[in-house]
Amino acid sequence: MTPRDTDLDSLAALFEAVRAGRLDPADAERRARELAAAASFEDLGFARVDHHRAVRQGFPEVVFGQGKTPDQIARIAEAIVRRGHSLLVTRTDAAAFDAVLTRVPDARFHQQARIIERRVDVPRGQGTILIAAAGTSDLPVAEEAAISAEVMGNDVDRMFDVGVAGIHRLLAEQQRLHAARVVVAVAGMEGALASVIGGLVRTPVIAVPTSVGYGASFGGITALLAMLNSCATGVAVVNIDNGFGAAAIASAITHG
Amino acid sequence: MTPRDTDLDSLAALFEAVRAGRLDPADAERRARELAAAASFEDLGFARVDHHRAVRQGFPEVVFGQGKTPDQIARIAEAIVRRGHSLLVTRTDAAAFDAVLTRVPDARFHQQARIIERRVDVPRGQGTILIAAAGTSDLPVAEEAAISAEVMGNDVDRMFDVGVAGIHRLLAEQQRLHAARVVVAVAGMEGALASVIGGLVRTPVIAVPTSVGYGASFGGITALLAMLNSCATGVAVVNIDNGFGAAAIASAITHG
Amino acid sequence: MTPRDTDLDSLAALFEAVRAGRLDPADAERRARELAAAASFEDLGFARVDHHRAVRQGFPEVVFGQGKTPDQIARIAEAIVRRGHSLLVTRTDAAAFDAVLTRVPDARFHQQARIIERRVDVPRGQGTILIAAAGTSDLPVAEEAAISAEVMGNDVDRMFDVGVAGIHRLLAEQQRLHAARVVVAVAGMEGALASVIGGLVRTPVIAVPTSVGYGASFGGITALLAMLNSCATGVAVVNIDNGFGAAAIASAITHG
Amino acid sequence: MTPRDTDLDSLAALFEAVRAGRLDPADAERRARELAAAASFEDLGFARVDHHRAVRQGFPEVVFGQGKTPDQIARIAEAIVRRGHSLLVTRTDAAAFDAVLTRVPDARFHQQARIIERRVDVPRGQGTILIAAAGTSDLPVAEEAAISAEVMGNDVDRMFDVGVAGIHRLLAEQQRLHAARVVVAVAGMEGALASVIGGLVRTPVIAVPTSVGYGASFGGITALLAMLNSCATGVAVVNIDNGFGAAAIASAITHG
Amino acid sequence: MTPRDTDLDSLAALFEAVRAGRLDPADAERRARELAAAASFEDLGFARVDHHRAVRQGFPEVVFGQGKTPDQIARIAEAIVRRGHSLLVTRTDAAAFDAVLTRVPDARFHQQARIIERRVDVPRGQGTILIAAAGTSDLPVAEEAAISAEVMGNDVDRMFDVGVAGIHRLLAEQQRLHAARVVVAVAGMEGALASVIGGLVRTPVIAVPTSVGYGASFGGITALLAMLNSCATGVAVVNIDNGFGAAAIASAITHG
Amino acid sequence: MTPRDTDLDSLAALFEAVRAGRLDPADAERRARELAAAASFEDLGFARVDHHRAVRQGFPEVVFGQGKTPDQIARIAEAIVRRGHSLLVTRTDAAAFDAVLTRVPDARFHQQARIIERRVDVPRGQGTILIAAAGTSDLPVAEEAAISAEVMGNDVDRMFDVGVAGIHRLLAEQQRLHAARVVVAVAGMEGALASVIGGLVRTPVIAVPTSVGYGASFGGITALLAMLNSCATGVAVVNIDNGFGAAAIASAITHG
Amino acid sequence: MTPRDTDLDSLAALFEAVRAGRLDPADAERRARELAAAASFEDLGFARVDHHRAVRQGFPEVVFGQGKTPDQIARIAEAIVRRGHSLLVTRTDAAAFDAVLTRVPDARFHQQARIIERRVDVPRGQGTILIAAAGTSDLPVAEEAAISAEVMGNDVDRMFDVGVAGIHRLLAEQQRLHAARVVVAVAGMEGALASVIGGLVRTPVIAVPTSVGYGASFGGITALLAMLNSCATGVAVVNIDNGFGAAAIASAITHG
Amino acid sequence: MTPRDTDLDSLAALFEAVRAGRLDPADAERRARELAAAASFEDLGFARVDHHRAVRQGFPEVVFGQGKTPDQIARIAEAIVRRGHSLLVTRTDAAAFDAVLTRVPDARFHQQARIIERRVDVPRGQGTILIAAAGTSDLPVAEEAAISAEVMGNDVDRMFDVGVAGIHRLLAEQQRLHAARVVVAVAGMEGALASVIGGLVRTPVIAVPTSVGYGASFGGITALLAMLNSCATGVAVVNIDNGFGAAAIASAITHG
Repeated sequence: MTPRDTDLDSLAALFEAVRAGRLDPADAERRARELAAAASFEDLGFARVDHHRAVRQGFPEVVFGQGKTPDQIARIAEAIVRRGHSLLVTRTDAAAFDAVLTRVPDARFHQQARIIERRVDVPRGQGTILIAAAGTSDLPVAEEAAISAEVMGNDVDRMFDVGVAGIHRLLAEQQRLHAARVVVAVAGMEGALASVIGGLVRTPVIAVPTSVGYGASFGGITALLAMLNSCATGVAVVNIDNGFGAAAIASAITHG
Repeated sequence: MTPRDTDLDSLAALFEAVRAGRLDPADAERRARELAAAASFEDLGFARVDHHRAVRQGFPEVVFGQGKTPDQIARIAEAIVRRGHSLLVTRTDAAAFDAVLTRVPDARFHQQARIIERRVDVPRGQGTILIAAAGTSDLPVAEEAAISAEVMGNDVDRMFDVGVAGIHRLLAEQQRLHAARVVVAVAGMEGALASVIGGLVRTPVIAVPTSVGYGASFGGITALLAMLNSCATGVAVVNIDNGFGAAAIASAITHG
Repeated sequence: MTPRDTDLDSLAALFEAVRAGRLDPADAERRARELAAAASFEDLGFARVDHHRAVRQGFPEVVFGQGKTPDQIARIAEAIVRRGHSLLVTRTDAAAFDAVLTRVPDARFHQQARIIERRVDVPRGQGTILIAAAGTSDLPVAEEAAISAEVMGNDVDRMFDVGVAGIHRLLAEQQRLHAARVVVAVAGMEGALASVIGGLVRTPVIAVPTSVGYGASFGGITALLAMLNSCATGVAVVNIDNGFGAAAIASAITHG
Repeated sequence: MTPRDTDLDSLAALFEAVRAGRLDPADAERRARELAAAASFEDLGFARVDHHRAVRQGFPEVVFGQGKTPDQIARIAEAIVRRGHSLLVTRTDAAAFDAVLTRVPDARFHQQARIIERRVDVPRGQGTILIAAAGTSDLPVAEEAAISAEVMGNDVDRMFDVGVAGIHRLLAEQQRLHAARVVVAVAGMEGALASVIGGLVRTPVIAVPTSVGYGASFGGITALLAMLNSCATGVAVVNIDNGFGAAAIASAITHG
Repeated sequence: MTPRDTDLDSLAALFEAVRAGRLDPADAERRARELAAAASFEDLGFARVDHHRAVRQGFPEVVFGQGKTPDQIARIAEAIVRRGHSLLVTRTDAAAFDAVLTRVPDARFHQQARIIERRVDVPRGQGTILIAAAGTSDLPVAEEAAISAEVMGNDVDRMFDVGVAGIHRLLAEQQRLHAARVVVAVAGMEGALASVIGGLVRTPVIAVPTSVGYGASFGGITALLAMLNSCATGVAVVNIDNGFGAAAIASAITHG
Repeated sequence: MTPRDTDLDSLAALFEAVRAGRLDPADAERRARELAAAASFEDLGFARVDHHRAVRQGFPEVVFGQGKTPDQIARIAEAIVRRGHSLLVTRTDAAAFDAVLTRVPDARFHQQARIIERRVDVPRGQGTILIAAAGTSDLPVAEEAAISAEVMGNDVDRMFDVGVAGIHRLLAEQQRLHAARVVVAVAGMEGALASVIGGLVRTPVIAVPTSVGYGASFGGITALLAMLNSCATGVAVVNIDNGFGAAAIASAITHG
Repeated sequence: MTPRDTDLDSLAALFEAVRAGRLDPADAERRARELAAAASFEDLGFARVDHHRAVRQGFPEVVFGQGKTPDQIARIAEAIVRRGHSLLVTRTDAAAFDAVLTRVPDARFHQQARIIERRVDVPRGQGTILIAAAGTSDLPVAEEAAISAEVMGNDVDRMFDVGVAGIHRLLAEQQRLHAARVVVAVAGMEGALASVIGGLVRTPVIAVPTSVGYGASFGGITALLAMLNSCATGVAVVNIDNGFGAAAIASAITHG
Repeated sequence: MTPRDTDLDSLAALFEAVRAGRLDPADAERRARELAAAASFEDLGFARVDHHRAVRQGFPEVVFGQGKTPDQIARIAEAIVRRGHSLLVTRTDAAAFDAVLTRVPDARFHQQARIIERRVDVPRGQGTILIAAAGTSDLPVAEEAAISAEVMGNDVDRMFDVGVAGIHRLLAEQQRLHAARVVVAVAGMEGALASVIGGLVRTPVIAVPTSVGYGASFGGITALLAMLNSCATGVAVVNIDNGFGAAAIASAITHG
């Protein structure tokens, strides 16, 4: 058997080749196992880039920048771009961007959102993702959500500083709230924004607690707990400061 | 001005009546304020039934049974049914059901799911909601999600006892997983099911941590935290044991 | 010196008596120390009833019923009533009430609020204390606050089931909110009610988290934390389910 | 209809104009919705300054400095001052002050209290706010409370280093304690000051836990919990280190 | 193709049959997928009994009794026994045992250990598993470990009440400690037993924190944390009260 | 060698016997190891009663009743009494007492303190142990401390219901406080009593947090943390509700 | 009356003066109140130095350096030294020492212990305080305890690196352990040292948890909890890293 | 008797010498006690190097670098190497390495693993230790485990970046998993890797939670809890980021 014979790239093809006498059953069996592994990831030694993810999940592997060296990020980025996939690196910084630029010259960096990205054409989501943020201090997380959603092929509507301490600012925007396909509600402190929006709209609400606050906000735990206990229905929650995660599920909804 | 004049049931109608001279501006103003309140809820003394919710959120107020007396539940139920709305009472029991039956004779009780319901025709959701549960002990929560979703007008696919300790049981069902519009992943203990499913599918995954476990499972906290930290994308989380909450956002997705 | 001579009931009187030669300096000194202690509490062996509290704090000692036997409660109650003070026992039950009745026949019991009380004329507070409760399940705590406030000489306005899931129910009542001297906001789950009210009114808001909820509500911790992190100003918080405590500070405000 | 016609600045005026034939009902309706939003906040893009708050809550929006850039703070400050409102920025620093000075030249900075402010005449509160602090290390929080209260129009009495380890220092000051309209009790470590003061006075006590301490003080959690569990009545609590929050509710009490 | 043809029970056999012309490639593919699933678990509706586990992990599926009805347990037990596997049900009770007896008449119940079991011949582990328990109150957990280990084919040495408050009781048994292949250290309260044993022996130590204690033992959290922070090497930890889990890894060590 | 030869009951005797030729070195070695173990504890199978403790620690093993069966307690009690030691069983109940009576007919039971004891003459401690309790609900813990201390040979002074909400009740007793050799301060809720006493006296203060309280008292955690963070010096803390533990260290101080 | 007349420095003297006609009763009363306050503390504005503490507690106020400026520390130090008291500043650093030197030239600084001190003759404690530390990393805390104890007039015996991972190192030192009047046990990680020592000696053991460790040691919480749950008797606990606190209570024991 | 006579280096030799008349019983007794202590550790003042550990536990004392000065580490390292033992310093850095080099010139430093080591021949373990890591960010912990295991005499197989978000990467490596004698599973975030591996293999799995993650990963607590609650059997857990600890127990298993 010719290793990595491109004609034998599916289970069906293997069985066909065996029937046609072109392939030995034992070789076919070994090949069947190789196939599953070979096509699906690329081993860089320190990382196994999951190229199969674009097929399986509709968007390629996203690089979690935290805890990786600039060089590691750059090499993973290059491997992703080489396959023609969208590049999205989160929780990263300018040093990593410099390293990425040497291998992916047309990458872009969003400082506030801490994102490096390079977009390719992806299927567009149905409807708008509205990103509502309670306060100015929540903007980094809100922008991480907004840019991630855009890279994933979505129309994004930004509605910032609509916290419940001045609830008329939110009530004045009900039309935009109702127009969205999904609402991402970003808030720190007591996180009441998610409940209030959840009570106003019929669309799914993805709540993102932020670490904005002090004292008994415990780095976002209070907002997280409050959002999990929302008395309004239609609200689900992602990790603290996880703007990207909210964008990912919101995009899964618009691409359903 | 005739109080509660049914011809004056919108802001537009009020302005029209003022212009036509049929209504005094001061009366109109008072009436405008009454309107907002009057149509929208019904004050039972101990409860303000939010009838407006069906319009605003696509499904009427759901009754949270815990902490209410059977009589309170029965009277709220009657008020909801009288308006022609679907009835859904969660976290309830047989005693409440007995009380409800005296006022809503055709209500039904689901013991394992702890739900009282009475269905009316509601718009059907697009696509199937798959409810995956890790173990047999998670069934009460999974059933709460399943029945709630059905009452809200959804097709539900149940896939139980597919925990990751025997991961081949889950891998054997990938086709059903991919066929769903939304997956609800119900698991206690370490809650790994949500991550594994999240890594397999492109549809949104709503994770429900359950209080199944002991010791350091802390009544579901471990599963909750694990699901919030899922390394897979497209996962959002609801409160511990909150099967209904998962159904609500899943239904918001299928009705988008 | 005549022990417990009622003419020698103040430090000034003692000095006067010494000057007048009616009292020996050494006796005066001993008496000065006795005086501080003697007039101020009554030792029942298992309890030291703090009769001085009515003078010092404007309301007599309130009996915390939890962890005391019916007989202990009854004997403390009798000691308080004998002095002509208002009686207020919180976190108590029917068994204690039976015991109290044998010694204070005209005491009253409020089952939902778990309060035994007997009112005497006390100075009236200035303005109304509005008790707002988010849901029907919060009523026991709200009633503990309401009845406590009434016994302390306040006008109370009850506004129940105005949780933020249907925020129009609250917005329809802004006039009553603005009319209050203090607002007590009672809520479980995510406790957003306190923030929303705090953002609407200029009066002080005393927030009472309740243990209503399940899962990650952690018996009221979530509501407690949320209220402590309110993005609205003018909000302070008491212990979980502490309706009485909210009434006490609210009454201190109306009696200022 | 003339957009933003200043004669049409209330709901009553609109109805009157419709009656007078000066305004078309449809325009009136649109205008009614605009009015609610337009007069009440100012959209700076990254922030919606809530100018309506001065009317609604008796004091304009206070700027929470943490997490905002100096430029953002300066622009919000300018917008507030331009309306003739009092400026109060908390949790800020010298860099922000430099930026503010370029737009609000007569602003003042209090380093220990981390406050930028510019005072205008506001209604005076009734009675004194006493700020009691347990130790020298608590002064930054105590000063945040004191200066905030002053800017809001209050007389402030400072009583520092009166912790219960040397309780005679506090007992020697009972007269000042009794003379206050509200007491703000600031303490870290075990936070016993709030309970002891709560047992001595009849005025409301607002307790502020501070992060002073180490080990099992957990950044103020111990003091927070202790204060929430005060065995004395008339005590309510704000967030850890939240001197401003204590001043806000204290001022709401003196302005009642 | 004959469904479930017993000659086609492996991937190798399928390829052989295709080569021999006995099987169509498309049927072979479908059959290949069925095989993986079919042989490996048995769907009881409410449970998928993982029969493959005996092959994969050396011991069949163990039934976690908590949260399952007696009937569910009995039916799962029957399915396991029918395959000729060892039966081990943990965290169960007399009611479940009664139900099991109707289907597995020779099952045995260990009340203190809360175990139902029926042994079949399994490979014997190499060396002894020593179960050390700190106090008499830890016996239920220690017995769960001991009996589980025995059912899994191990020699067990029980050493009870050797807590560090009287350390000479432990030091007197060093010979038995050194003779073991694995030591399971069971302790509540401060859990110091694991560290002291870990410092004495060169064999692996599996530490089991128990919920024995009160107050700040927090149901076993203190012992769990102490064991995780053991200053001695060679110690790993399982969940609180998880005697079975300790036996399982100990048995994996003796069967290596 | 004669096993258990009573002449060979010390290491010195063994060496002497070897020198005298009465004992073989190898036997001597084995005997040396037996001796250490044999004299010091008694193995009841489920318990190893630590008789050596009376020598080593000045008081025999105390039986922790929780989690032991009445029969186990009775048999341990009998073994202790047979040696002529004081019997002290804590956290026990009437059922255990009945069992103990059948073997130790003159044992006594203290219901409120949950203690079974039988006293023998023990060395008297120097000075008094004062047990101060904040409230009536703390009495069970305070009595556990008081009776334990008495059984251990101490004079005990009880001072109950002196919580800081009415601090004059405590200040009136300073003379008794100063007269004690050790003060045990028992309090729940915010536990401020320990700090206030710590600030008043120069004697060591052993603080006992109790689980009295509700909500954010978290079963005594708040009092525990407050006591650990006492701003007063000379305070150390034992476990929540651990009256016995406080008595033990207090008695170690008076017996120093 | 001459203010601050040194002849009128006690309550007895005042009464005597009134009797002798040298003092007016009203003046006497005022003076009585002044006396309590005047002699007892010195108000530096930012601090009230508690000079009365030396009388009341046997040792003057100790300065908690953390959170105080070098200048504040120096001025408090000077006030203490001026009265002839021992100076002890904890949790301080070289910068504060430089400031102190300008006012107290013969002060000394202990860098590892973070202490500034200046000793005067104080009464010697009875017996030795033994400071046992589990590991080399615990030395800063152990030294804080040792030096504090020395300044307070105690003989100190240091026994370092005797953690239970090599328990023979501790068992080899039993004689020194038994010889001590008090043992201070300093340990991080799982803190088992306190239990093992507690089981070996009859003297009181003061346990000091340290923040040494990582991961689930949680900055000393694990050691703290373990020590609170010690299965050995005669152990009480102070705050994490609180070497000074342990010295203070140990010294109270030796000075009893 | 000649002190430290090398002929008298065991208990047996002592008895023999007494029998032979070469040694006086009293001297023998003293010597017996010295022996236990003398041979077993070396007192450097700040540390007691436990040389006995190599005999007792099969591997010499490992130096925990955190919290020790470079000089302390170097001196301990020298003492270990001088005895001919393997050197292993964990949680250390380049500064310590420089200090060690001056005393142990052929030591090696592994920066990513933060380890200093110098290997000597030690017995080889039976079978391979497989180190599986979920992501690239987990490599420092995985390398600490890998190098520690190698120094302890083990064959190590590294399998990195096999997290469950792309589970096919892991499933493709089942053969290597089954071939190992022990698997060490290293993962942060939700830590599901341990459960999935635990469900696949029959070998013992040592799970190492890492602090990789953010928000509600709480520095590794989530992964820790998830691993403790693994629904798969045969899994035990070590402290967060404790790669060395996992290696130590794994090596204890391979050396059994």
